[in-house]
Amino acid sequence: MNLALLFEEDFVAPDRVRIRGRRLDHLKTVLKADKGHRIPVGKVNGLMGHGEVLSLTATDAELQVTLDQPPPPALPLTLILAMPRPKMFRRVLQTCASLGVKDLWLINSYKVEKSFWQTPWLSEDNLRDNLTLGLEQSKDTMMPRVHTRKLFKPFVEDELPALLTGKRALVAHPGMAAPCPSHLKTPAALCIGPEGGFTDYEVRKLEEAGCQSVHLGPRILRVETAVPVLISRLFDACL
Amino acid sequence: MNLALLFEEDFVAPDRVRIRGRRLDHLKTVLKADKGHRIPVGKVNGLMGHGEVLSLTATDAELQVTLDQPPPPALPLTLILAMPRPKMFRRVLQTCASLGVKDLWLINSYKVEKSFWQTPWLSEDNLRDNLTLGLEQSKDTMMPRVHTRKLFKPFVEDELPALLTGKRALVAHPGMAAPCPSHLKTPAALCIGPEGGFTDYEVRKLEEAGCQSVHLGPRILRVETAVPVLISRLFDACL
Repeated sequence: MNLALLFEEDFVAPDRVRIRGRRLDHLKTVLKADKGHRIPVGKVNGLMGHGEVLSLTATDAELQVTLDQPPPPALPLTLILAMPRPKMFRRVLQTCASLGVKDLWLINSYKVEKSFWQTPWLSEDNLRDNLTLGLEQSKDTMMPRVHTRKLFKPFVEDELPALLTGKRALVAHPGMAAPCPSHLKTPAALCIGPEGGFTDYEVRKLEEAGCQSVHLGPRILRVETAVPVLISRLFDACL
Repeated sequence: MNLALLFEEDFVAPDRVRIRGRRLDHLKTVLKADKGHRIPVGKVNGLMGHGEVLSLTATDAELQVTLDQPPPPALPLTLILAMPRPKMFRRVLQTCASLGVKDLWLINSYKVEKSFWQTPWLSEDNLRDNLTLGLEQSKDTMMPRVHTRKLFKPFVEDELPALLTGKRALVAHPGMAAPCPSHLKTPAALCIGPEGGFTDYEVRKLEEAGCQSVHLGPRILRVETAVPVLISRLFDACL
């Protein structure tokens, strides 16, 4: 936690917050903060700054907050991911949030097992918690939006073309002829398949919707590695 | 497992292997292979190719192997990592192996907790197993070498300068003036600190040994995210 993310419900006055739970524990055990100590804070979807500890008890801490700095720039990226395996999903969420992804679409694909959609990590609270961890890691306040689409074809045919408008649209798929571009200066949309990849049919449908198929070299990477590798390649100047 | 990595002890003849355990399970349950089925294989530190299933029993499988393709190019990188927290270490090992890192140095740093060095994941067998998983993921055969150095100062003063000879040497550290370079065409050495970063003293010692301090933008990333992001940035053409 390099920044404590503050939510509406934490504010007891316009410039005062009361925090509990995980953030309080971190304040005490990792930062070893005491009265008068300043820690980096940010208001969700708002400015960043610092909070000065006014009081600290067993159950909560009160901080006087000064919010005067903008968060780091968002990545100009729409990331479209085949729903990952649950044990990987949490980490992927945190990684996306820490890298500045603000628009994440979780879609179905032939090789996405039905059970993946049952994971409790998809609940609104769990999504918010994991995205918060990623934002707090990288010192950002802008909460990503997560969309789920459990049917591949209607999403790709009816929604995707509009999502791609004005963007460089790519689908990363091993074995394609074109290498993944780098140093993009324009907004982009990037589709990444599941373990085992999109099927040929799915790649064709994504191409029909406007995506260019690109490869990432001879190595096949896990989704949780491919996401930072591809984002870094596309937007190294934005990170 | 996109490739089954074969070791000396698996060979029962120059072109025949017998496999058991994890690789056998994968063959049966994920690949659902049967007699005559071909799977991608590679010989550790050697060529890649395919193995044709000759027989399959409850306890082992025998494959006839044809090895005729070179593994993907190694990354021209010496990666020097402050020893990560154990729960992160396994994943970092697998990620490094899957990205083509071949020379990994695990070093001490002020913020590396002493207990990190006690992890069973540092045993020779566990290192080999986790690096194998990374190589099998990305279809590579060249086993990375892992070096551990539990004393920071002697390593940085006595060994590091020679390691950096002929390489672009960098230490990634938040808040430095220079941005991390990209598109390197030359060999590089990259130092990455622990959670909480190297201390100022440590950064100075690394600079004295020949490293340039560079930042990676305003975001602070976990080590497991920073590794693929930095590697992708430095060597996007090699991945």
